[in-house]
Parts: sequence; C-alpha cells; structure tokens
Amino acid sequence: MSKIAKLYEGKAKILYSTEDPEILLSVYKDDATAFNAQKKGTIKGKGEINCTVASALFQSLETNGIATHYIDCPTPNQMRVKAVKIIPVEVVVRNIAAGSLCRQTGLKEGTVLPCPLVEYYLKDDDLGDPLLTRDRLFLLDIVTEEQLSTIHKMALKINQHLQEFFNRCQITLVDFKLEFGFDSQQKIILADEISPDTCRLWDQTETDPQARVMDKDRFRKDLGQVESAYSKVQERVLAALNI
Amino acid sequence: MSKIAKLYEGKAKILYSTEDPEILLSVYKDDATAFNAQKKGTIKGKGEINCTVASALFQSLETNGIATHYIDCPTPNQMRVKAVKIIPVEVVVRNIAAGSLCRQTGLKEGTVLPCPLVEYYLKDDDLGDPLLTRDRLFLLDIVTEEQLSTIHKMALKINQHLQEFFNRCQITLVDFKLEFGFDSQQKIILADEISPDTCRLWDQTETDPQARVMDKDRFRKDLGQVESAYSKVQERVLAALNI
Ligand SMILES: Nc1ncnc2c1ncn2[C@@H]1O[C@H](COP(=O)(O)OP(=O)(O)O)[C@@H](O)[C@H]1O
Ligand SMILES: Nc1ncnc2c1ncn2[C@@H]1O[C@H](COP(=O)(O)OP(=O)(O)O)[C@@H](O)[C@H]1O
Ligand SMILES: [Mg+2]
Ligand SMILES: [Mg+2]
Repeated sequence: MSKIAKLYEGKAKILYSTEDPEILLSVYKDDATAFNAQKKGTIKGKGEINCTVASALFQSLETNGIATHYIDCPTPNQMRVKAVKIIPVEVVVRNIAAGSLCRQTGLKEGTVLPCPLVEYYLKDDDLGDPLLTRDRLFLLDIVTEEQLSTIHKMALKINQHLQEFFNRCQITLVDFKLEFGFDSQQKIILADEISPDTCRLWDQTETDPQARVMDKDRFRKDLGQVESAYSKVQERVLAALNI
Repeated sequence: MSKIAKLYEGKAKILYSTEDPEILLSVYKDDATAFNAQKKGTIKGKGEINCTVASALFQSLETNGIATHYIDCPTPNQMRVKAVKIIPVEVVVRNIAAGSLCRQTGLKEGTVLPCPLVEYYLKDDDLGDPLLTRDRLFLLDIVTEEQLSTIHKMALKINQHLQEFFNRCQITLVDFKLEFGFDSQQKIILADEISPDTCRLWDQTETDPQARVMDKDRFRKDLGQVESAYSKVQERVLAALNI
C-alpha cells in the first residue's frame, strides 16, 4: 500500500491517496496547533501516540457495532482509512463543562452536565468554527433531519462506549470532537481521529485541576509535560484494550 | 403617574418604579450604542421616535391578540408598561440574512431565508450575548420546554404581523430582536421595545444597499443621515396605523 498523491495537509495529519480509490492513508504528524492555528508548536511523538490511541479506540468502537473509517495501521503513525466525504461539522459531545462552553455561557469549568450535550460546530477555520443551532445546520444545507438524527444517535453511543473505556483507564472523558462522513455506500460512518488532541481527558488519580489534564489543554494552556501526558494516555489505553 | 425611583439605567432606556408596583415607567433616551457598547453616540430625537414607533407597534400587536407590556405614553418619550420579570434571552427573528448570522455562517447578506429563523441569544453583555442552542437554553435553566414553545409561537406570530405592518409602510422587515417576560400572573408577554434600534428595516423604495437602510445599521456602519432615517420610519409607521 504505497502513497500515490498528497490529497490534503491539515493541521495534524496528511492524507494520501492509494492505489485503491476507496482507501486513503492518514499520516499523523507531531505538529500541534491551538486557537484556530494561531498558536503553533510540536509535541514530540504525538503522531505515533495519537495514531495508536485512535487505532485502539476505533477498533474498540467497531467491536461495539459502531462503523468507523478505520482499516489498519501499516506503521505506528500511519492509518489506512476508508475514503469518505466528510460532513463539514465538528460534532462535540460534552459530559463536563469546559472550554468554549464555559467561555460562552459562564458555566463553571468542571460542572457535571445533567446529561451528555451533543453540539455542532461548522468546520470552517476562516469563520472560527462557529456553534450551529439545528436550524442553522438545515439552513446551510449541511445535513438533513434524518442524517442529523443518525449522527446524534451515533455520537451518544460513541460517548457511552468511550466513557466506559476511559473509566477503565482511570480517565474521565470530559468532552471530545468527532467527524463523520459518507462512505462509498453513502452510509454515515465515524472518521478523522479520537486522541488526546481531540478529547479532554482528566486523570482520575490526580485531584489537582492542572495535574489531572492529559490532553491538548496542556499545550493550549502551557501546563508543561505535554509529551509525558500523551504517553500516559497511550499506555493506559493499550492496557485497557486487553482487559 | 410620577417616577418614584430609578430602577435601572440601560443603554437605551431608563426604568422607573411608579406608585403602582405592577407598573413601570420606561424613559427612552437619545443614547445610541453598538457592538456591545464599544461604540457610543447620540441620535437626536431617537428617544421620542423609538417610543412612538414602539407604542404604535405594541398597540397594533395587542389588536391582533398578542399580549404586550404596553399601557400608554404619558409623554412622547415615556412609556408606561406592565412590570415583568424579564427572561434573559434576546429572541431574534430573521427573514433575510444579515449581521451576525452572515458573519458566523458565511451566508451572503440579503439572502432570503426559506422560512423565518427564530434564534435565542443569552442577554449578557459581559459574555457578548452568545448564541444559544435549545440544549444550552435548558442547561442554563433559562426556560422550560413549554415556555420555549410559547415564546417560539409568539415570536412567529409577531413576525407575521410586523411583516405585514411594515409592508404597508413599504419597509422590509429583515430581522428584529424581542424580549419576553413573566407578568404578575406568570403569563409570558412581550416586553422591552420594537424600534429602528432593535429591527433591521430596508426601504422598499430604495434599491441601493446603503440608501435603503432605515435602522441602527446607519449608526453601526457610519452611513450618515441616521436621524432622518429614524424620522422616516416614524412617519410611515404612524401613517400605516391609520390605514
Ligand atoms: N476517512 C476520511 N476520508 C476523507 N477525509 C478524511 C477522513 N478522515 C478525516 N478526513 C479529513 O482529513 C483531514 C485530516 O487532517 P487534519 O490535520 O485533522 O485536518 P484539519 O486541519 O482540517 O482538521 C480533515 O480535514 C478531516 O476532515
Ligand atoms: N416591562 C418590563 N419590566 C421590567 N423590565 C423591562 C421591561 N421591559 C424591558 N425591561 C428591561 O429594561 C431594560 C431596558 O433598558 P435598555 O436600555 O434596553 O437596557 P439594556 O442596555 O440592558 O438592553 C432592559 O434590561 C429590559 O430587559
Ligand atoms: Mg483535524
Ligand atoms: Mg435593550
């Protein structure tokens, strides 16, 4: 399976076409960005860690009946995936208030939500990934009501499964971002990645609000020990896979 | 009916208590603000114009079965209103894309929406009046599902009536902001104001995109002739009242 052409270089991954038009190669990079790419840096080893973590989580989700784009990993930072037509929406599932939800509503960080909140943001860096209401999603012709209902149900099911998975790792899944796409059969499947770059993960063995952070917030907020936090997530995820 | 105590001075009005605890006096000011009060100025005569326009529109809505806080106007810039407990949400109804909807979604200004869009923004200057999804409205305990349904229906009915009213004035109602509150019987009624400060109004007799603007956008965008545009709205609204 060789790379044929670079299709797209994003902030965290490079997508290549392969000899099979239905299969893409996603190469995970060490590049880190935050605040809509205004802050840039490198997290050594991140490419391999995120690819490994995403691979473990995708496999675990597939086992639980959730269709993903995952095929396999030819090398530790390369993932073969089913080519999809990405739906340009970042689907965010929140269990605990953090980040933009707190900035925008005044809710205190750490507030446990009464039930998981599924939110939709337009995947558009120029517009700053704005929050979308249901009506705006339909107005912009991004999805139909039926597609949104499918995505909503998948997001909640993924959350349910990932929460249980991360609990076994003694990690609290605060929130995370998903991307979905249409596969060659026009079926909606989970795509992109699930990793410390795209989740907020809090170490249940730490009580200090800074010490417990195991995700990209360490980079965003300059908390230090970014690499070791990412490594710890990988370790625990790989251990939990075999439970 | 004399002012007893100043209860609140806002950006556009001052609220006074009266001898009747169920009645407030709302004094409309010439002060103009935009961009969350970062831009400040004065629009001569605005207080009287907005109070007169709001009075005409509230009366017209009452005639059409919509409950408002309006009682009467003792002077041209003073309105007696029923005291309500304001619901801290700015309800925005949009018929044509403009303003923050365009900035946030990339929709072109002037796009006619397939159906009226009812949106909710948190009334909180410190947070910059952020857009709220239904789930966030419930999460923040601002309204119940039933109350939201009442507000949604009232907003659409008000839009229907105001669109017809402004059409008789040869004015296109692009969008507008409403505030609702609970009266002494805990009934949800329309409060605050409806005026060129809180609506986008386009003159149907002008085709030029700048010349047609008859609302606060003239002030926001430094288009000039702010006072004369506001006066023209008042003239046409008063004429339409008698049709
Ligand atoms: N299976 C897939 N098929 C096609 N595109 C995908 C697939 N999975 C993810 N993508 C897209 O590939 C890109 C991944 O690179 P990334 O660095 O995350 O980009 P970005 O900076 O746009 O977020 C994203 O634009 C993502 O939407
Ligand atoms: N009937 C009413 N009873 C109580 N408060 C009201 C009523 N109508 C409007 N208000 C409130 O009075 C204030 C009106 O003043 P305004 O200058 O518009 O204030 P702001 O700068 O907060 O928008 C607003 O806060 C509005 O919510
Ligand atoms: Mg990405
Ligand atoms: Mg106001």
